[in-house]
Amino acid sequence: MLKLYGYWRSSAAYRVRIALNLKELDADLLSVHLVKGGGEQHKTDYGKLNPQELVPTLVDIDEGGDEFVLSQSMAILEYLEECYPQIALLPADLKPKAQVRALALSIACEIHPLNNLKVLQYLAGELGVTDETKSAWYHHWIHEGFSALEKQLEKHAGRFCFGDSVTLVDLCLIPQVYNAHRFKVDLTEYPNILRITENCNQLDAFIQAMPENQFDAV
Amino acid sequence: MLKLYGYWRSSAAYRVRIALNLKELDADLLSVHLVKGGGEQHKTDYGKLNPQELVPTLVDIDEGGDEFVLSQSMAILEYLEECYPQIALLPADLKPKAQVRALALSIACEIHPLNNLKVLQYLAGELGVTDETKSAWYHHWIHEGFSALEKQLEKHAGRFCFGDSVTLVDLCLIPQVYNAHRFKVDLTEYPNILRITENCNQLDAFIQAMPENQFDAV
Repeated sequence: MLKLYGYWRSSAAYRVRIALNLKELDADLLSVHLVKGGGEQHKTDYGKLNPQELVPTLVDIDEGGDEFVLSQSMAILEYLEECYPQIALLPADLKPKAQVRALALSIACEIHPLNNLKVLQYLAGELGVTDETKSAWYHHWIHEGFSALEKQLEKHAGRFCFGDSVTLVDLCLIPQVYNAHRFKVDLTEYPNILRITENCNQLDAFIQAMPENQFDAV
Repeated sequence: MLKLYGYWRSSAAYRVRIALNLKELDADLLSVHLVKGGGEQHKTDYGKLNPQELVPTLVDIDEGGDEFVLSQSMAILEYLEECYPQIALLPADLKPKAQVRALALSIACEIHPLNNLKVLQYLAGELGVTDETKSAWYHHWIHEGFSALEKQLEKHAGRFCFGDSVTLVDLCLIPQVYNAHRFKVDLTEYPNILRITENCNQLDAFIQAMPENQFDAV
Protein backbone atom coordinates (compact mmCIF):
# COMPACT_ATOMS: atom_id res chain seq x y z
CA MET A 1 0.00 0.00 0.00
CA LEU A 2 1.27 3.43 -0.94
CA LYS A 3 0.69 6.76 0.81
CA LEU A 4 1.87 10.04 -0.67
CA TYR A 5 2.18 13.19 1.42
CA GLY A 6 1.96 16.15 -0.93
CA TYR A 7 0.34 19.48 -1.63
CA TRP A 8 -1.72 20.47 -4.66
CA ARG A 9 0.67 23.24 -5.74
CA SER A 10 3.97 21.48 -4.99
CA SER A 11 5.80 20.81 -8.28
CA ALA A 12 7.76 17.98 -6.71
CA ALA A 13 4.58 16.22 -5.48
CA TYR A 14 2.98 16.84 -8.90
CA ARG A 15 5.84 14.86 -10.56
CA VAL A 16 5.11 11.87 -8.34
CA ARG A 17 1.33 12.09 -8.88
CA ILE A 18 1.89 11.84 -12.64
CA ALA A 19 4.12 8.77 -12.16
CA LEU A 20 1.55 7.05 -9.95
CA ASN A 21 -1.16 7.69 -12.55
CA LEU A 22 0.96 6.54 -15.49
CA LYS A 23 1.95 3.38 -13.65
CA GLU A 24 -1.68 2.84 -12.64
CA LEU A 25 -0.82 2.64 -8.95
CA ASP A 26 -3.30 3.38 -6.22
CA ALA A 27 -2.02 5.61 -3.45
CA ASP A 28 -3.63 7.40 -0.54
CA LEU A 29 -2.95 11.09 -1.13
CA LEU A 30 -2.46 13.10 2.05
CA SER A 31 -2.27 16.87 2.11
CA VAL A 32 0.43 18.86 3.91
CA HIS A 33 -0.58 22.52 3.66
CA LEU A 34 2.66 24.34 2.85
CA VAL A 35 1.43 27.81 3.77
CA LYS A 36 -1.30 27.67 6.44
CA GLY A 37 -0.06 28.55 9.93
CA GLY A 38 3.55 28.89 8.73
CA GLY A 39 3.39 25.53 6.94
CA GLU A 40 2.27 22.12 8.17
CA GLN A 41 5.52 20.63 6.83
CA HIS A 42 7.27 22.20 9.85
CA LYS A 43 5.06 20.43 12.42
CA THR A 44 6.80 17.91 14.69
CA ASP A 45 4.96 14.84 13.41
CA TYR A 46 5.70 15.56 9.78
CA GLY A 47 9.30 16.47 10.61
CA LYS A 48 9.77 12.99 12.09
CA LEU A 49 8.65 11.49 8.81
CA ASN A 50 10.64 13.91 6.67
CA PRO A 51 13.43 15.78 8.51
CA GLN A 52 13.84 18.09 5.52
CA GLU A 53 10.27 19.28 6.14
CA LEU A 54 9.45 19.13 2.45
CA VAL A 55 6.88 17.37 0.31
CA PRO A 56 6.54 14.84 -1.17
CA THR A 57 7.08 11.88 1.15
CA LEU A 58 6.18 8.41 -0.04
CA VAL A 59 5.30 5.70 2.46
CA ASP A 60 5.34 2.15 1.12
CA ILE A 61 3.67 -0.26 3.56
CA ASP A 62 4.41 -3.92 3.02
CA GLU A 63 2.15 -6.87 3.80
CA GLY A 64 3.61 -7.20 7.30
CA GLY A 65 2.72 -3.55 7.99
CA ASP A 66 6.34 -2.29 7.87
CA GLU A 67 6.57 1.27 6.61
CA PHE A 68 9.29 2.36 4.22
CA VAL A 69 9.51 6.15 4.22
CA LEU A 70 11.14 7.92 1.29
CA SER A 71 11.70 11.61 0.57
CA GLN A 72 13.01 13.52 -2.48
CA SER A 73 10.80 13.30 -5.55
CA MET A 74 13.56 12.15 -7.91
CA ALA A 75 14.46 9.29 -5.55
CA ILE A 76 10.76 8.41 -5.28
CA LEU A 77 10.43 8.33 -9.08
CA GLU A 78 13.44 6.02 -9.40
CA TYR A 79 12.05 3.78 -6.65
CA LEU A 80 8.63 3.53 -8.34
CA GLU A 81 10.41 2.80 -11.62
CA GLU A 82 12.35 -0.07 -10.05
CA CYS A 83 9.39 -1.51 -8.13
CA TYR A 84 6.90 -1.17 -11.00
CA PRO A 85 8.88 -1.33 -14.27
CA GLN A 86 5.97 -2.66 -16.38
CA ILE A 87 5.03 0.83 -17.56
CA ALA A 88 8.52 2.27 -17.93
CA LEU A 89 9.43 5.94 -17.58
CA LEU A 90 13.14 5.38 -18.29
CA PRO A 91 14.57 3.82 -21.47
CA ALA A 92 16.10 0.36 -21.04
CA ASP A 93 19.46 1.12 -22.71
CA LEU A 94 22.15 2.77 -20.59
CA LYS A 95 22.94 5.78 -22.77
CA PRO A 96 19.37 6.95 -23.46
CA LYS A 97 18.55 6.25 -19.80
CA ALA A 98 21.43 8.47 -18.70
CA GLN A 99 20.34 11.16 -21.15
CA VAL A 100 16.79 11.13 -19.76
CA ARG A 101 18.12 11.45 -16.22
CA ALA A 102 20.35 14.37 -17.25
CA LEU A 103 17.44 16.24 -18.85
CA ALA A 104 15.16 15.59 -15.87
CA LEU A 105 17.86 16.73 -13.46
CA SER A 106 18.46 19.88 -15.49
CA ILE A 107 14.98 20.89 -14.27
CA ALA A 108 15.11 19.27 -10.83
CA CYS A 109 18.58 20.58 -9.90
CA GLU A 110 18.89 23.82 -11.87
CA ILE A 111 15.44 25.42 -12.06
CA HIS A 112 13.11 24.09 -9.39
CA PRO A 113 15.40 24.51 -6.32
CA LEU A 114 15.84 28.20 -7.04
CA ASN A 115 12.16 28.92 -7.44
CA ASN A 116 10.47 26.91 -4.76
CA LEU A 117 8.49 28.29 -1.85
CA LYS A 118 11.24 28.42 0.80
CA VAL A 119 13.57 30.37 -1.49
CA LEU A 120 10.92 32.90 -2.52
CA GLN A 121 10.06 33.27 1.18
CA TYR A 122 13.73 33.96 2.03
CA LEU A 123 14.01 36.56 -0.74
CA ALA A 124 10.89 38.38 0.45
CA GLY A 125 11.61 37.92 4.17
CA GLU A 126 15.34 37.97 5.02
CA LEU A 127 16.39 39.93 1.92
CA GLY A 128 13.27 42.11 1.88
CA VAL A 129 13.17 42.30 -1.92
CA THR A 130 10.19 43.81 -3.75
CA ASP A 131 7.62 41.66 -5.56
CA GLU A 132 9.12 42.92 -8.81
CA THR A 133 12.63 41.73 -7.88
CA LYS A 134 11.26 38.39 -6.71
CA SER A 135 9.44 37.98 -9.99
CA ALA A 136 12.59 38.90 -11.97
CA TRP A 137 14.50 36.24 -9.98
CA TYR A 138 11.85 33.65 -10.82
CA HIS A 139 11.79 34.57 -14.52
CA HIS A 140 15.59 34.60 -14.75
CA TRP A 141 16.03 30.98 -13.65
CA ILE A 142 13.13 29.75 -15.79
CA HIS A 143 14.54 31.43 -18.89
CA GLU A 144 18.08 30.26 -18.22
CA GLY A 145 16.94 26.67 -17.65
CA PHE A 146 14.34 26.55 -20.41
CA SER A 147 16.71 28.07 -23.03
CA ALA A 148 19.19 25.26 -22.42
CA LEU A 149 16.45 22.64 -22.30
CA GLU A 150 14.85 23.89 -25.53
CA LYS A 151 18.20 23.41 -27.32
CA GLN A 152 18.45 19.87 -26.02
CA LEU A 153 14.84 19.11 -26.98
CA GLU A 154 15.59 20.10 -30.59
CA LYS A 155 17.86 17.08 -30.58
CA HIS A 156 15.96 14.61 -28.42
CA ALA A 157 12.24 15.41 -28.54
CA GLY A 158 9.54 13.60 -30.45
CA ARG A 159 5.98 13.71 -29.29
CA PHE A 160 7.43 14.03 -25.77
CA CYS A 161 10.74 15.31 -24.36
CA PHE A 162 12.69 12.20 -25.22
CA GLY A 163 11.26 10.54 -28.31
CA ASP A 164 7.67 9.41 -28.50
CA SER A 165 7.22 7.89 -25.04
CA VAL A 166 6.65 9.72 -21.78
CA THR A 167 9.76 9.73 -19.58
CA LEU A 168 10.92 11.28 -16.32
CA VAL A 169 11.78 14.46 -18.25
CA ASP A 170 8.10 15.08 -19.02
CA LEU A 171 7.23 14.44 -15.37
CA CYS A 172 9.61 17.23 -14.37
CA LEU A 173 8.78 19.57 -17.24
CA ILE A 174 4.99 19.77 -16.91
CA PRO A 175 4.94 20.90 -13.24
CA GLN A 176 7.68 23.43 -14.01
CA VAL A 177 5.65 24.83 -16.93
CA TYR A 178 2.54 24.97 -14.71
CA ASN A 179 4.56 27.00 -12.24
CA ALA A 180 6.02 29.25 -14.93
CA HIS A 181 2.50 30.07 -16.15
CA ARG A 182 1.51 30.88 -12.58
CA PHE A 183 4.33 33.41 -12.41
CA LYS A 184 3.35 34.78 -15.85
CA VAL A 185 6.55 33.79 -17.67
CA ASP A 186 6.24 34.22 -21.44
CA LEU A 187 7.19 30.85 -22.96
CA THR A 188 6.74 31.67 -26.65
CA GLU A 189 10.51 31.36 -27.20
CA TYR A 190 10.23 27.65 -26.39
CA PRO A 191 8.13 25.97 -29.11
CA ASN A 192 9.23 22.44 -28.18
CA ILE A 193 8.39 22.96 -24.53
CA LEU A 194 4.95 24.35 -25.43
CA ARG A 195 4.19 21.57 -27.92
CA ILE A 196 5.23 18.82 -25.49
CA THR A 197 3.21 20.42 -22.71
CA GLU A 198 0.14 20.33 -24.92
CA ASN A 199 0.76 16.67 -25.78
CA CYS A 200 1.24 15.66 -22.15
CA ASN A 201 -1.75 17.58 -20.90
CA GLN A 202 -4.06 15.62 -23.19
CA LEU A 203 -3.25 12.42 -21.30
CA ASP A 204 -5.49 11.35 -18.39
CA ALA A 205 -2.48 10.66 -16.14
CA PHE A 206 -1.35 14.26 -16.48
CA ILE A 207 -4.85 15.74 -16.26
CA GLN A 208 -5.66 13.88 -13.04
CA ALA A 209 -2.36 15.03 -11.50
CA MET A 210 -2.96 18.73 -12.19
CA PRO A 211 -2.95 20.97 -9.12
CA GLU A 212 -6.49 22.22 -9.72
CA ASN A 213 -7.75 18.63 -9.79
CA GLN A 214 -6.45 17.76 -6.32
CA PHE A 215 -8.78 17.37 -3.35
CA ASP A 216 -6.82 19.97 -1.37
CA ALA A 217 -6.83 22.60 -4.15
CA VAL A 218 -8.03 25.98 -2.97
CA MET B 1 37.82 6.24 -23.19
CA LEU B 2 36.46 8.79 -20.76
CA LYS B 3 36.94 12.56 -20.76
CA LEU B 4 35.69 14.76 -17.94
CA TYR B 5 35.30 18.50 -18.33
CA GLY B 6 35.46 20.04 -14.87
CA TYR B 7 36.99 22.71 -12.70
CA TRP B 8 39.03 22.24 -9.55
CA ARG B 9 36.58 24.11 -7.32
CA SER B 10 33.33 22.82 -8.82
CA SER B 11 31.54 20.66 -6.23
CA ALA B 12 29.64 18.82 -8.94
CA ALA B 13 32.85 17.92 -10.82
CA TYR B 14 34.45 16.92 -7.49
CA ARG B 15 31.66 14.32 -6.97
CA VAL B 16 32.46 12.73 -10.31
CA ARG B 17 36.22 12.78 -9.71
CA ILE B 18 35.70 10.79 -6.50
CA ALA B 19 33.56 8.23 -8.36
CA LEU B 20 36.16 7.80 -11.11
CA ASN B 21 38.85 7.24 -8.50
CA LEU B 22 36.79 4.80 -6.42
CA LYS B 23 35.88 2.82 -9.52
CA GLU B 24 39.53 2.92 -10.65
CA LEU B 25 38.63 4.43 -14.02
CA ASP B 26 41.09 6.42 -16.08
CA ALA B 27 39.72 9.64 -17.50
CA ASP B 28 41.26 12.63 -19.23
CA LEU B 29 40.51 15.60 -17.01
CA LEU B 30 39.94 18.85 -18.91
CA SER B 31 39.65 22.21 -17.20
CA VAL B 32 36.89 24.74 -17.89
CA HIS B 33 37.79 27.89 -15.98
CA LEU B 34 34.53 29.04 -14.42
CA VAL B 35 35.67 32.57 -13.62
CA LYS B 36 38.39 33.74 -16.04
CA GLY B 37 37.10 36.12 -18.74
CA GLY B 38 33.50 35.76 -17.54
CA GLY B 39 33.74 31.98 -17.49
CA GLU B 40 34.94 29.55 -20.17
CA GLN B 41 31.73 27.54 -19.70
CA HIS B 42 29.92 30.28 -21.65
CA LYS B 43 32.15 29.96 -24.72
CA THR B 44 30.47 28.73 -27.92
CA ASP B 45 32.40 25.46 -28.20
CA TYR B 46 31.68 24.39 -24.67
CA GLY B 47 28.04 25.49 -25.00
CA LYS B 48 27.63 23.08 -27.93
CA LEU B 49 28.83 20.27 -25.70
CA ASN B 50 26.79 21.35 -22.69
CA PRO B 51 23.93 23.80 -23.47
CA GLN B 52 23.49 24.44 -19.74
CA GLU B 53 27.02 25.88 -19.72
CA LEU B 54 27.86 24.05 -16.53
CA VAL B 55 30.49 21.56 -15.43
CA PRO B 56 30.91 18.65 -15.30
CA THR B 57 30.42 17.10 -18.73
CA LEU B 58 31.42 13.49 -19.28
CA VAL B 59 32.36 12.27 -22.75
CA ASP B 60 32.43 8.51 -23.22
CA ILE B 61 34.13 7.56 -26.48
CA ASP B 62 33.50 4.04 -27.74
CA GLU B 63 35.83 1.84 -29.79
CA GLY B 64 34.39 3.17 -33.04
CA GLY B 65 35.16 6.72 -31.96
CA ASP B 66 31.51 7.69 -31.28
CA GLU B 67 31.19 10.24 -28.50
CA PHE B 68 28.44 10.02 -25.89
CA VAL B 69 28.13 13.37 -24.13
CA LEU B 70 26.48 13.54 -20.72
CA SER B 71 25.82 16.45 -18.37
CA GLN B 72 24.46 16.69 -14.80
CA SER B 73 26.72 15.14 -12.16
CA MET B 74 23.99 12.95 -10.62
CA ALA B 75 23.15 11.49 -14.03
CA ILE B 76 26.87 10.93 -14.66
CA LEU B 77 27.24 9.11 -11.33
CA GLU B 78 24.28 6.83 -12.14
CA TYR B 79 25.72 6.17 -15.60
CA LEU B 80 29.15 5.25 -14.21
CA GLU B 81 27.42 3.03 -11.65
CA GLU B 82 25.54 1.16 -14.38
CA CYS B 83 28.53 0.85 -16.73
CA TYR B 84 31.01 -0.10 -14.01
CA PRO B 85 29.07 -1.83 -11.21
CA GLN B 86 32.02 -3.90 -9.93
CA ILE B 87 32.88 -1.33 -7.26
CA ALA B 88 29.36 -0.32 -6.29
CA LEU B 89 28.34 3.06 -4.90
CA LEU B 90 24.67 2.16 -4.56
CA PRO B 91 23.30 -0.73 -2.47
CA ALA B 92 21.85 -3.63 -4.46
CA ASP B 93 18.47 -3.83 -2.65
CA LEU B 94 15.75 -1.45 -3.78
CA LYS B 95 14.88 0.17 -0.47
CA PRO B 96 18.43 0.98 0.71
CA LYS B 97 19.25 2.08 -2.83
CA ALA B 98 16.30 4.48 -2.81
CA GLN B 99 17.33 5.76 0.62
CA VAL B 100 20.87 6.46 -0.61
CA ARG B 101 19.51 8.36 -3.59
CA ALA B 102 17.21 10.40 -1.35
CA LEU B 103 20.09 11.39 0.95
CA ALA B 104 22.36 12.26 -1.97
CA LEU B 105 19.61 14.33 -3.61
CA SER B 106 18.95 16.15 -0.34
CA ILE B 107 22.39 17.70 -0.93
CA ALA B 108 22.28 17.86 -4.74
CA CYS B 109 18.77 19.35 -4.96
CA GLU B 110 18.39 21.31 -1.72
CA ILE B 111 21.81 22.73 -0.79
CA HIS B 112 24.14 22.85 -3.76
CA PRO B 113 21.82 24.59 -6.29
CA LEU B 114 21.29 27.51 -3.94
CA ASN B 115 24.96 28.06 -3.24
CA ASN B 116 26.68 27.58 -6.54
CA LEU B 117 28.61 30.19 -8.46
CA LYS B 118 25.85 31.46 -10.76
CA VAL B 119 23.47 32.07 -7.84
CA LEU B 120 26.05 33.89 -5.75
CA GLN B 121 26.89 35.97 -8.83
CA TYR B 122 23.20 36.87 -9.29
CA LEU B 123 22.88 37.89 -5.64
CA ALA B 124 25.94 40.13 -5.84
CA GLY B 125 25.20 41.42 -9.35
CA GLU B 126 21.47 41.77 -10.09
CA LEU B 127 20.39 42.03 -6.46
CA GLY B 128 23.46 44.03 -5.38
CA VAL B 129 23.57 42.45 -1.93
CA THR B 130 26.53 43.00 0.40
CA ASP B 131 29.17 40.32 1.02
CA GLU B 132 27.66 39.90 4.48
CA THR B 133 24.18 39.20 3.08
CA LYS B 134 25.62 36.81 0.50
CA SER B 135 27.47 34.98 3.25
CA ALA B 136 24.31 34.79 5.41
CA TRP B 137 22.45 33.31 2.41
CA TYR B 138 25.17 30.69 1.97
CA HIS B 139 25.24 29.80 5.67
CA HIS B 140 21.43 29.62 5.85
CA TRP B 141 21.08 26.90 3.21
CA ILE B 142 24.02 24.91 4.54
CA HIS B 143 22.59 24.92 8.07
CA GLU B 144 19.08 24.09 6.90
CA GLY B 145 20.30 21.21 4.74
CA PHE B 146 22.92 19.87 7.14
CA SER B 147 20.53 19.96 10.15
CA ALA B 148 18.12 17.68 8.29
CA LEU B 149 20.93 15.49 6.99
CA GLU B 150 22.51 15.14 10.44
CA LYS B 151 19.19 13.79 11.80
CA GLN B 152 19.03 11.26 8.99
CA LEU B 153 22.66 10.24 9.51
CA GLU B 154 21.90 9.40 13.15
CA LYS B 155 19.72 6.67 11.75
CA HIS B 156 21.68 5.55 8.68
CA ALA B 157 25.37 6.30 9.18
CA GLY B 158 28.13 3.89 10.05
CA ARG B 159 31.68 4.62 9.10
CA PHE B 160 30.19 6.49 6.13
CA CYS B 161 26.83 8.18 5.44
CA PHE B 162 24.97 4.98 4.75
CA GLY B 163 26.46 2.13 6.73
CA ASP B 164 30.09 1.13 6.38
CA SER B 165 30.56 1.41 2.62
CA VAL B 166 31.07 4.54 0.59
CA THR B 167 27.92 5.48 -1.38
CA LEU B 168 26.71 8.36 -3.55
CA VAL B 169 25.79 10.24 -0.37
CA ASP B 170 29.46 10.54 0.63
CA LEU B 171 30.32 11.68 -2.90
CA CYS B 172 27.85 14.56 -2.50
CA LEU B 173 28.65 15.32 1.13
CA ILE B 174 32.42 15.74 0.96
CA PRO B 175 32.43 18.45 -1.78
CA GLN B 176 29.63 20.26 0.07
CA VAL B 177 31.65 20.20 3.32
CA TYR B 178 34.72 21.43 1.44
CA ASN B 179 32.66 24.32 0.17
CA ALA B 180 31.16 25.04 3.58
CA HIS B 181 34.65 25.28 5.08
CA ARG B 182 35.61 27.68 2.29
CA PHE B 183 32.72 29.93 3.30
CA LYS B 184 33.69 29.56 6.99
CA VAL B 185 30.53 27.77 8.12
CA ASP B 186 30.85 26.40 11.65
CA LEU B 187 29.99 22.70 11.43
CA THR B 188 30.43 21.72 15.09
CA GLU B 189 26.68 21.08 15.41
CA TYR B 190 27.04 18.18 12.98
CA PRO B 191 29.21 15.50 14.61
CA ASN B 192 28.20 12.77 12.14
CA ILE B 193 29.00 14.94 9.16
CA LEU B 194 32.40 15.84 10.61
CA ARG B 195 33.25 12.25 11.53
CA ILE B 196 32.27 10.92 8.10
CA THR B 197 34.23 13.69 6.39
CA GLU B 198 37.32 12.64 8.33
CA ASN B 199 36.79 8.99 7.39
CA CYS B 200 36.32 9.78 3.70
CA ASN B 201 39.24 12.14 3.50
CA GLN B 202 41.62 9.39 4.63
CA LEU B 203 40.90 7.42 1.46
CA ASP B 204 43.13 7.89 -1.58
CA ALA B 205 40.14 8.22 -3.93
CA PHE B 206 38.92 11.23 -1.97
CA ILE B 207 42.37 12.74 -1.45
CA GLN B 208 43.21 12.61 -5.15
CA ALA B 209 39.88 14.25 -6.00
CA MET B 210 40.39 17.22 -3.67
CA PRO B 211 40.30 20.63 -5.36
CA GLU B 212 43.80 21.54 -4.21
CA ASN B 213 45.16 18.37 -5.81
CA GLN B 214 43.86 19.19 -9.30
CA PHE B 215 46.18 20.27 -12.09
CA ASP B 216 44.13 23.46 -12.66
CA ALA B 217 44.09 24.50 -8.98
CA VAL B 218 45.21 28.08 -8.43
